[in-house]
Amino acid sequence: MSDKTNAPFLRNAWWQAAWSDEIDNERGILARTIMNEPIVFFRDKSGKVGAVEDRCCHRGAPLSHGNVVEKGLECLYHGLTFDCSGKCVEIPGQDSIPPMANVKSYPVVERQEFIWIWMGDPAKADESKIIDWPFHEGEKKLPHRKATMPIQVNFMMMIDNLMDLTHLGYVHRKTIGGDPRTHVNAKMDTVRTETGVKYVRWMDDCNPPPTYVKGAGFKGKVDRWQEFEYVLPGSVLQWSGALDVGKGARENREQDGFHLRLFHGITPATETTSYYFWSTANGYRTDDPQATEDMYNEIYPTFVEDVDIMNVQQERINMDPDRPLVGIKADHALVLARRALQQALDEERSAVPQAAE
Amino acid sequence: MSDKTNAPFLRNAWWQAAWSDEIDNERGILARTIMNEPIVFFRDKSGKVGAVEDRCCHRGAPLSHGNVVEKGLECLYHGLTFDCSGKCVEIPGQDSIPPMANVKSYPVVERQEFIWIWMGDPAKADESKIIDWPFHEGEKKLPHRKATMPIQVNFMMMIDNLMDLTHLGYVHRKTIGGDPRTHVNAKMDTVRTETGVKYVRWMDDCNPPPTYVKGAGFKGKVDRWQEFEYVLPGSVLQWSGALDVGKGARENREQDGFHLRLFHGITPATETTSYYFWSTANGYRTDDPQATEDMYNEIYPTFVEDVDIMNVQQERINMDPDRPLVGIKADHALVLARRALQQALDEERSAVPQAAE
Amino acid sequence: MSDKTNAPFLRNAWWQAAWSDEIDNERGILARTIMNEPIVFFRDKSGKVGAVEDRCCHRGAPLSHGNVVEKGLECLYHGLTFDCSGKCVEIPGQDSIPPMANVKSYPVVERQEFIWIWMGDPAKADESKIIDWPFHEGEKKLPHRKATMPIQVNFMMMIDNLMDLTHLGYVHRKTIGGDPRTHVNAKMDTVRTETGVKYVRWMDDCNPPPTYVKGAGFKGKVDRWQEFEYVLPGSVLQWSGALDVGKGARENREQDGFHLRLFHGITPATETTSYYFWSTANGYRTDDPQATEDMYNEIYPTFVEDVDIMNVQQERINMDPDRPLVGIKADHALVLARRALQQALDEERSAVPQAAE
Repeated sequence: MSDKTNAPFLRNAWWQAAWSDEIDNERGILARTIMNEPIVFFRDKSGKVGAVEDRCCHRGAPLSHGNVVEKGLECLYHGLTFDCSGKCVEIPGQDSIPPMANVKSYPVVERQEFIWIWMGDPAKADESKIIDWPFHEGEKKLPHRKATMPIQVNFMMMIDNLMDLTHLGYVHRKTIGGDPRTHVNAKMDTVRTETGVKYVRWMDDCNPPPTYVKGAGFKGKVDRWQEFEYVLPGSVLQWSGALDVGKGARENREQDGFHLRLFHGITPATETTSYYFWSTANGYRTDDPQATEDMYNEIYPTFVEDVDIMNVQQERINMDPDRPLVGIKADHALVLARRALQQALDEERSAVPQAAE
Repeated sequence: MSDKTNAPFLRNAWWQAAWSDEIDNERGILARTIMNEPIVFFRDKSGKVGAVEDRCCHRGAPLSHGNVVEKGLECLYHGLTFDCSGKCVEIPGQDSIPPMANVKSYPVVERQEFIWIWMGDPAKADESKIIDWPFHEGEKKLPHRKATMPIQVNFMMMIDNLMDLTHLGYVHRKTIGGDPRTHVNAKMDTVRTETGVKYVRWMDDCNPPPTYVKGAGFKGKVDRWQEFEYVLPGSVLQWSGALDVGKGARENREQDGFHLRLFHGITPATETTSYYFWSTANGYRTDDPQATEDMYNEIYPTFVEDVDIMNVQQERINMDPDRPLVGIKADHALVLARRALQQALDEERSAVPQAAE
Repeated sequence: MSDKTNAPFLRNAWWQAAWSDEIDNERGILARTIMNEPIVFFRDKSGKVGAVEDRCCHRGAPLSHGNVVEKGLECLYHGLTFDCSGKCVEIPGQDSIPPMANVKSYPVVERQEFIWIWMGDPAKADESKIIDWPFHEGEKKLPHRKATMPIQVNFMMMIDNLMDLTHLGYVHRKTIGGDPRTHVNAKMDTVRTETGVKYVRWMDDCNPPPTYVKGAGFKGKVDRWQEFEYVLPGSVLQWSGALDVGKGARENREQDGFHLRLFHGITPATETTSYYFWSTANGYRTDDPQATEDMYNEIYPTFVEDVDIMNVQQERINMDPDRPLVGIKADHALVLARRALQQALDEERSAVPQAAE
């Protein structure tokens, strides 16, 4: 388990900072606080995305109030301009630019509709470590829809939530929950992976829910699964699906049937607030845009239910953040996920000697 | 006088936590913060009222978002269930319940439409010490109406307010105030009681105000009184009334005439916020529901005037809470009330050795 | 430069507290926080303005909720009354007034529509040091209009803003800005004065802007200037104008032409909030009230643009108030102003030995 309920930040890791299209607003600029640091994301005139400290070195004004100009991002206050690397390339009224006139920049990668950011040592920012989510781009691309929800919760509390589905019967009682016993008694196959934790819940030889029937045209019983994979530090890859009984789902799930691919990205804004990014990909009626829309509209209010209970949970935690919680059986995957994070935090701290927090 | 303008909390005492009917809402659940502790009140299926910490021991979620089920109060997040004593009686998915899986509970008593709570040592919670207010139930029952007002004020500031009626001519100038001199010059009979302070203001041989005439049908002059009794730690029992001159009011007030019975209960939510509970009982036209309603509607805006000035008073106090105030003559009963509280606080502290606050 | 971006308060100095007519509201009372101290301004029945601590010595209630009565300012709570010197002159219910029953008072001067306040040692409050602004009263009086804007900015940040006009081309791009180069390349004549800093920007032999033409009826080219004088600790006197070429503007500006007289007064409410007072006087079409109104309506949204960027600038500064800023050439006058303030602060501290802040 992490030392604290409010988990600390792992800095040497890729975190989702935004969806690409969040930057592609009218101004080409997006302000976001990550790990307490105000950051401005912008797309320069060449199309490249930059992420720099959202504070001009001259008078401290937020650069996110400025404008993208030919040379880069121009401060609204007195016109200093910075490129994607944070280098000052223009100071109105003077020819030479002093060397300290720069702002901090962060490694960023735009890929598969994600903007990933590296908050730690730039020298360690290895792009090959970025999660692959092929359902947004390329051969495996599926129709999908994305959302960003600001939440008043430590990022790890949302991971906890996704690691323990026994909450479905309670939090989502009025929506997708169904009978609590189903969730509580589901058999879980949970494993520690190299990059986190994965579990699969199997419901064999059962009646498919209406959404599944509508989505994949099942005539009879199905083998269902729910796979959740936590990938350090802030992502959960979900694959919910079903195949007709007899197709050998356990051996090979990659067959025609019902396939819902959900990506969950949770990134800390502060110790107790986060951004919750999610994407839902339609792998069951790929030629029907309405099916993608319907699933999004079904999921959205469900996730709001999660956020509502977690927001008030966090309020209680904040009253005494170090007070212990009591573990129960259903916490198994959650405990493994916390342990994986703690191990990564320990490694980061031992690798880079630093002052105690 | 109390050491501080913002009086500390007396824990070994009964405080009003709610009116009974506040719990009898649709969900049978009421969340309230008392002395900085989040508490959930609920009525279980047997009709008993429980008060337990509003934080599930499992993941910290507030139980007040849960539901009353057969076995007790069920957490909305993962279904753990607690009885009125705070004992966990259900953990979905496991048979044995570990001994630490409990939440803190508080002694509560439901009586005469009050919910009383004991915030200190449960072993000392003696129900016989609870204030009797017979005007809500039984033989002496009167038609009445109740209210709860959250106020941004230390509980003792409201006691102060009720202990010095010279404010009537200023705060309530536009409503019930009348000429300030009347209040300032009224003769006060103030005594220290075993449980607090009591004063009576007598206005002999005077013209009854219109409300009194309408209420009791007076034809001529009356002897009027206003009795305010502070009962430690947070209650004030008010008896305002009048009898026809010649009936011997001083010797025996329990005769037909005008009798208004007001209960004031003030309970600390935090050092600087409180709940102000009050009840007004019609002891003058008991067969006329409109008379009860009219009095409530007359009193309500008057108490809002008190709250308005006290809220801004507290803002100033908070800027420097330990800065001394200058005493004046009119503070006499207030000083006695503060002294009574301080004595009780001193006794509590000497009885139970504890770390300095 | 001042030690800190959030400049400390100079106490032994006259600060603008209000415009006279702000006190002349229905109640004759104005509450304002200056240097973290809650102060109530009131005009007594003789017409004199008093400034006293906005906290009754009796129970701490804010006197600004009271009323001006014959003897002075009466507390709303229990009727204590104070004169302009803060002396208690009435305690209802008692004849003698104890000597400690006073509230702190501040030297105030009402002059030329300003209310000036002295926050330091009253013995040093020399009225001859008050800024003269003859455009509000007397022979030089001009038609004018005034405003008060609460801003979320340390007072000196607004002085900085007025000392560096290169912001015009960026902050005011959509309003009065024009081409940034014009402002960046303008020649500045900057001098340290006895009471602060003064600069004049000259634009010789240029086409007058439409406002100027409309205002003064220019037929051809003009010599234009913008004079900004910072007077310690919180005022900036602005004289923007133009004369026909050939009239010898450099030698004598006091001739018929276009003359806009702006007063800027900035007074700290707290370390990071201030009141921004400004007055615009029409020295170009003095017989046309609409011209005064038009100028006010043109300036107002422009100053809102300044305030908007400064408010967010201050948020960034507050994240790390002592973090250094990078200086550029355009900061020249700003640096001199900061230095002048720092010198005055140093003198105040060395003159009156006091505890370190």
